[in-house]
Amino acid sequence: MKLRPLADRVIVKRLENETKTASGIVIPDNAAEKPDQGEILAVGPGKMDDDGDRLPMNVKVGDRVLFGKYSGQTVKVDGEELLVMKEDDLFAVVEK
Amino acid sequence: MKLRPLADRVIVKRLENETKTASGIVIPDNAAEKPDQGEILAVGPGKMDDDGDRLPMNVKVGDRVLFGKYSGQTVKVDGEELLVMKEDDLFAVVEK
Amino acid sequence: MKLRPLADRVIVKRLENETKTASGIVIPDNAAEKPDQGEILAVGPGKMDDDGDRLPMNVKVGDRVLFGKYSGQTVKVDGEELLVMKEDDLFAVVEK
Amino acid sequence: MKLRPLADRVIVKRLENETKTASGIVIPDNAAEKPDQGEILAVGPGKMDDDGDRLPMNVKVGDRVLFGKYSGQTVKVDGEELLVMKEDDLFAVVEK
Amino acid sequence: MKLRPLADRVIVKRLENETKTASGIVIPDNAAEKPDQGEILAVGPGKMDDDGDRLPMNVKVGDRVLFGKYSGQTVKVDGEELLVMKEDDLFAVVEK
Amino acid sequence: MKLRPLADRVIVKRLENETKTASGIVIPDNAAEKPDQGEILAVGPGKMDDDGDRLPMNVKVGDRVLFGKYSGQTVKVDGEELLVMKEDDLFAVVEK
Amino acid sequence: MKLRPLADRVIVKRLENETKTASGIVIPDNAAEKPDQGEILAVGPGKMDDDGDRLPMNVKVGDRVLFGKYSGQTVKVDGEELLVMKEDDLFAVVEK
Repeated sequence: MKLRPLADRVIVKRLENETKTASGIVIPDNAAEKPDQGEILAVGPGKMDDDGDRLPMNVKVGDRVLFGKYSGQTVKVDGEELLVMKEDDLFAVVEK
Repeated sequence: MKLRPLADRVIVKRLENETKTASGIVIPDNAAEKPDQGEILAVGPGKMDDDGDRLPMNVKVGDRVLFGKYSGQTVKVDGEELLVMKEDDLFAVVEK
Repeated sequence: MKLRPLADRVIVKRLENETKTASGIVIPDNAAEKPDQGEILAVGPGKMDDDGDRLPMNVKVGDRVLFGKYSGQTVKVDGEELLVMKEDDLFAVVEK
Repeated sequence: MKLRPLADRVIVKRLENETKTASGIVIPDNAAEKPDQGEILAVGPGKMDDDGDRLPMNVKVGDRVLFGKYSGQTVKVDGEELLVMKEDDLFAVVEK
Repeated sequence: MKLRPLADRVIVKRLENETKTASGIVIPDNAAEKPDQGEILAVGPGKMDDDGDRLPMNVKVGDRVLFGKYSGQTVKVDGEELLVMKEDDLFAVVEK
Repeated sequence: MKLRPLADRVIVKRLENETKTASGIVIPDNAAEKPDQGEILAVGPGKMDDDGDRLPMNVKVGDRVLFGKYSGQTVKVDGEELLVMKEDDLFAVVEK
Repeated sequence: MKLRPLADRVIVKRLENETKTASGIVIPDNAAEKPDQGEILAVGPGKMDDDGDRLPMNVKVGDRVLFGKYSGQTVKVDGEELLVMKEDDLFAVVEK
């Protein structure tokens, strides 16, 4: 099953805390806290402006992104928990 | 009876949980939770901009769509419970 | 007495539950629940944009429309309870 | 004393319940409820758009109008209680 | 000391209740209620639009204006209590 | 240390109550109430519009300004308590 | 690991209180209060307008900036606590 996001939405898979520690990131206050990084699995075509044109997206599939702890909405697809958010909920691309 | 949605609204029929499990989707935390996928039964002509032009819709009748648990409003038509939502409440098209 | 709605407003007469059951619609959870369909009695000239032009209305007198349970405001005219709502509160036109 | 409303405001004098019953209108649930019809006493020049042009008003002095129970703000002028509201708070013109 | 209001603000001096009763206005429910009329002491240059142009003001120094009971913010200047409000908080000009 | 405000922000130093009384201003209800006048220490370059142009500012360094009791945010710079606010939070320029 | 902020976001590293006192800044009421100055570590490309153009950013990497106590969202990257905020959350650039 494949998801094709609409407008300026992206589908994000949260990175596991383990993965994150390996790359040097520490989630401090609460060991159970959900990581605030993920990988982009799918990218929408961009928001449509009033002339019917699309504003280009600034992230692409495979980007590692940083987002707010409470950003996005959780969906379960093929047994996997994913996040759906708007591009504007993304803070930054994490470059390796 | 046929529904002709106005503006950028769509009429969605929720997929049953059974159907969803068959296609590999699991709704985890709560067995009674309503599925967050559905099939589009009718599509409005698009939102009208200030010049009276319509912005094109990005979904079509028959599309399987993913949406938020609390999206849309429920209506009963011919004994069937349907959802009315705006296109912007749709997260993604699920491609098979 | 005749009502001439302003801007993008419509005057709607709710259909009685009886009428609705006859056409196959069931309002399930609560027998006393108000029907969410009605007939349009009057249509405004459309919202005026910033250039003073009117955006065309997409419904007409006589249309059977579907709307939200809590849409519109109730007024009593000549002893009859009517609903005033904006076109954008209408979900769909019900075609017979 | 004369009031010259600003922008898209109108000055409305509520019709007395007696007047309304005479013309066939009934305010049902609560005999003490304030009538939701009135007569327009003064009309502003229209809202100014960003170019300094005025959008034309769609009601005129003498029009009988229908409005929401909680629309407008009450002012007392020369001992008479009047309502100040924006044109957009008016639902419809009542034609005789 | 002179006040030069910014943008679309006006400085208003509330009329005393005495003055108002003399001109026939009655503030009914509460003798201590603050009057909702005042005289304009100073007028700003108008709101600046996105092109840096000013939208003209529709009131002038000396105008007697009607406003909402809770409009504006109180300031004390040279021992005198004045009201600062935006032009859009003014309901009407009272013509004598 | 010098502050260069961004966009349409200004840095304001509140006038002491003493200064204000000397110029005839009285803060009545509460002797401990903070004065609502200040002097502008720094002015931003103006808000940028959608074309990247700046809207001109209407106040300048040294202006004595009137603002709301709860306007702005307090910062401490070099031991001095200052206010940061947007130009739109300023009511008027006080001319001597 | 490097962060590439999206749109008009900046990544800020809060200055320690010690650093701040050295440069003459005092955070008074509460010794444990978080400093409201920081250094910009990364700057986004600017907000995209409706034509797909970017509005230029007004701060650059290395700028010392002043912001509100509650501005931004905290993220931990490589063990370091950073702030993500929009440029509009920045009050001023502190010039040395």
